[in-house]
Amino acid sequence: MNTTANTSPLSGLANRQVRLASRPVGMPTRDNWQFTTEPVAEPDDGGLVVQTLYLSLDPAMRGWMNEGKSYIPPVGLGEVMRAGGIGRVIASRHPDFPVDAYVTGTLGVQEYARFGRDEIKRLGVARIDPRLGGLTQWLNVLGMPGMTGYFGLMDIGQPKPGETVVVSGAAGAVGQTVGQLAKLKGCRVVGIAGGKAKCDWVVHELGFDACIDYKGGAVKDGLKQHCAQGVDIYFDNVGGEILDTVLTRINRKARIIICGAISQYNNTETVQGPKNYLSLLVNRARMEGMVVFDYADRYPQAIAELAGYLQAGRMKSKEDVVFGLDTFPETLLKLFTGENFGKLVLQVAKT
Amino acid sequence: MNTTANTSPLSGLANRQVRLASRPVGMPTRDNWQFTTEPVAEPDDGGLVVQTLYLSLDPAMRGWMNEGKSYIPPVGLGEVMRAGGIGRVIASRHPDFPVDAYVTGTLGVQEYARFGRDEIKRLGVARIDPRLGGLTQWLNVLGMPGMTGYFGLMDIGQPKPGETVVVSGAAGAVGQTVGQLAKLKGCRVVGIAGGKAKCDWVVHELGFDACIDYKGGAVKDGLKQHCAQGVDIYFDNVGGEILDTVLTRINRKARIIICGAISQYNNTETVQGPKNYLSLLVNRARMEGMVVFDYADRYPQAIAELAGYLQAGRMKSKEDVVFGLDTFPETLLKLFTGENFGKLVLQVAKT
Repeated sequence: MNTTANTSPLSGLANRQVRLASRPVGMPTRDNWQFTTEPVAEPDDGGLVVQTLYLSLDPAMRGWMNEGKSYIPPVGLGEVMRAGGIGRVIASRHPDFPVDAYVTGTLGVQEYARFGRDEIKRLGVARIDPRLGGLTQWLNVLGMPGMTGYFGLMDIGQPKPGETVVVSGAAGAVGQTVGQLAKLKGCRVVGIAGGKAKCDWVVHELGFDACIDYKGGAVKDGLKQHCAQGVDIYFDNVGGEILDTVLTRINRKARIIICGAISQYNNTETVQGPKNYLSLLVNRARMEGMVVFDYADRYPQAIAELAGYLQAGRMKSKEDVVFGLDTFPETLLKLFTGENFGKLVLQVAKT
Repeated sequence: MNTTANTSPLSGLANRQVRLASRPVGMPTRDNWQFTTEPVAEPDDGGLVVQTLYLSLDPAMRGWMNEGKSYIPPVGLGEVMRAGGIGRVIASRHPDFPVDAYVTGTLGVQEYARFGRDEIKRLGVARIDPRLGGLTQWLNVLGMPGMTGYFGLMDIGQPKPGETVVVSGAAGAVGQTVGQLAKLKGCRVVGIAGGKAKCDWVVHELGFDACIDYKGGAVKDGLKQHCAQGVDIYFDNVGGEILDTVLTRINRKARIIICGAISQYNNTETVQGPKNYLSLLVNRARMEGMVVFDYADRYPQAIAELAGYLQAGRMKSKEDVVFGLDTFPETLLKLFTGENFGKLVLQVAKT
């Protein structure tokens, strides 16, 4: 009997996973996580198994760790932490996903993700075309952050040439897409980021017109200096004091895109509301929330446009890649301490 | 010499005026006002003199008493307090404004208003057609509050039949227009007002589907009970806690019209920001400010529509009329204590 033919590529594989052990109060710590290992089962009919290559670390993950209703249910205690990622199909019983195909989807914080037939669509598993961009770029400008920036800026912000666009979290994944895209649309672009080094990077690497260092204080002075004509569009990734300060500088008919509020996500007290919101009244301005999933039908069109810019060298996709599933608890915190330059990516396997 | 022919209708008239004596801290008091009397001068070429009949008392007046930039400059110390009103032309050197014509405009808190040629347009002096509605209705549904409610609801809110519309300050001038108009557009309409008597009045007189008594507490429970399908449009005249509570009940793609924040106007501390504003994100909702003057070109169209409803008995215009210029300091406060049932109007002269 020839056993070689029956040896599955999965046999002997151990899947190391990171599960939510407890809900954090304030900043998450290593105690909130549990590392587990389990064997990798064969795919069911219509299913597949994916090896995780890269995981996207996003501010939204902090929200998923909390109990309570949001735009997406929380991660349950004991469950593998939710995360989007890029992987390679290593076993398949689904005709659309051959072995060795690259896919994006909600892989979770684990080395291998197994999907049943019905989970493929629900967890957003889809093939990606590596010719359009590098693998990590599919977690950045060509991925969810890029889609968020694209539809937030274009659909909610509706930029017009000559307008001034301010974006907070400028060095992050969403921020870099928003800022570079706004430049391409003919706007003046001013970022807000933490630290002089990061601000220099935003201006020199990403080509923003200016970047204000909120850690250096004086966001108000920075806005006065760099947005002499006022602010027409503010893409808000941070909330808190910065949102309040920008509200004092908006123009008539300004548009504020509420994409996130990273400054508030680890609050143990209640969220700080924008006390200058009546500036919306005086300036006939608008503040609007957006959730990227609503635009899923139009992702291909946005990806095509952004990939075109990347290939033409008119836009960059900058990732900050950290290696090792074991570093997940600490690497995630870089988002909240503002240490990452570019989109934060956890590399789980060598490619 | 026959002097009778030369006797002006203005001769001997004393114009009693209310001037801003000092800027209030918190709620205005009688000490913030100065009463003065001066003779009424003849109109210049191209000018006119108007006898004030009715003055509109509005929450926005509190803002005009403060220093600092807003959508309109503050009233200067020593100046006659700004107020819109309805009057009758008593002397004219302008061909478009014959004596005895009725006009609306920024008459100020005084018995007689004198306009130079250049002030007529700037202060919004325009003839009104008393056949379209009673004189006080021109300060209410057919006046600025009606225009505010009309364009706020229709342009910013964009109501669709079957949607649920919530409006605070429901018994006030803007609120009654918004609520009745939303009913005519096929919406379910829930008011928020202060006190059981006022809420009963809103439901029985104005025909709202329900009205929540914020003084009875439990706005949250009231919204749960009366807006079982959630809130699609919130027309906010009050800000503060009520705005925050409504934010917890909004539907996907909800629209919040920021028209005012009467709960915050007398604050000596800073304005309270809506701490639940991230509900905009979760619900992909929008919060937008509006200032009625932006729609001046379209007032005639809105007046025609609203006058049609009034004449057909499909809408009511309810005013709370208080007589006497001398009562101005106390009557104004009814807006902030919530005592008025319907649009608050100060009658200055018998008609």
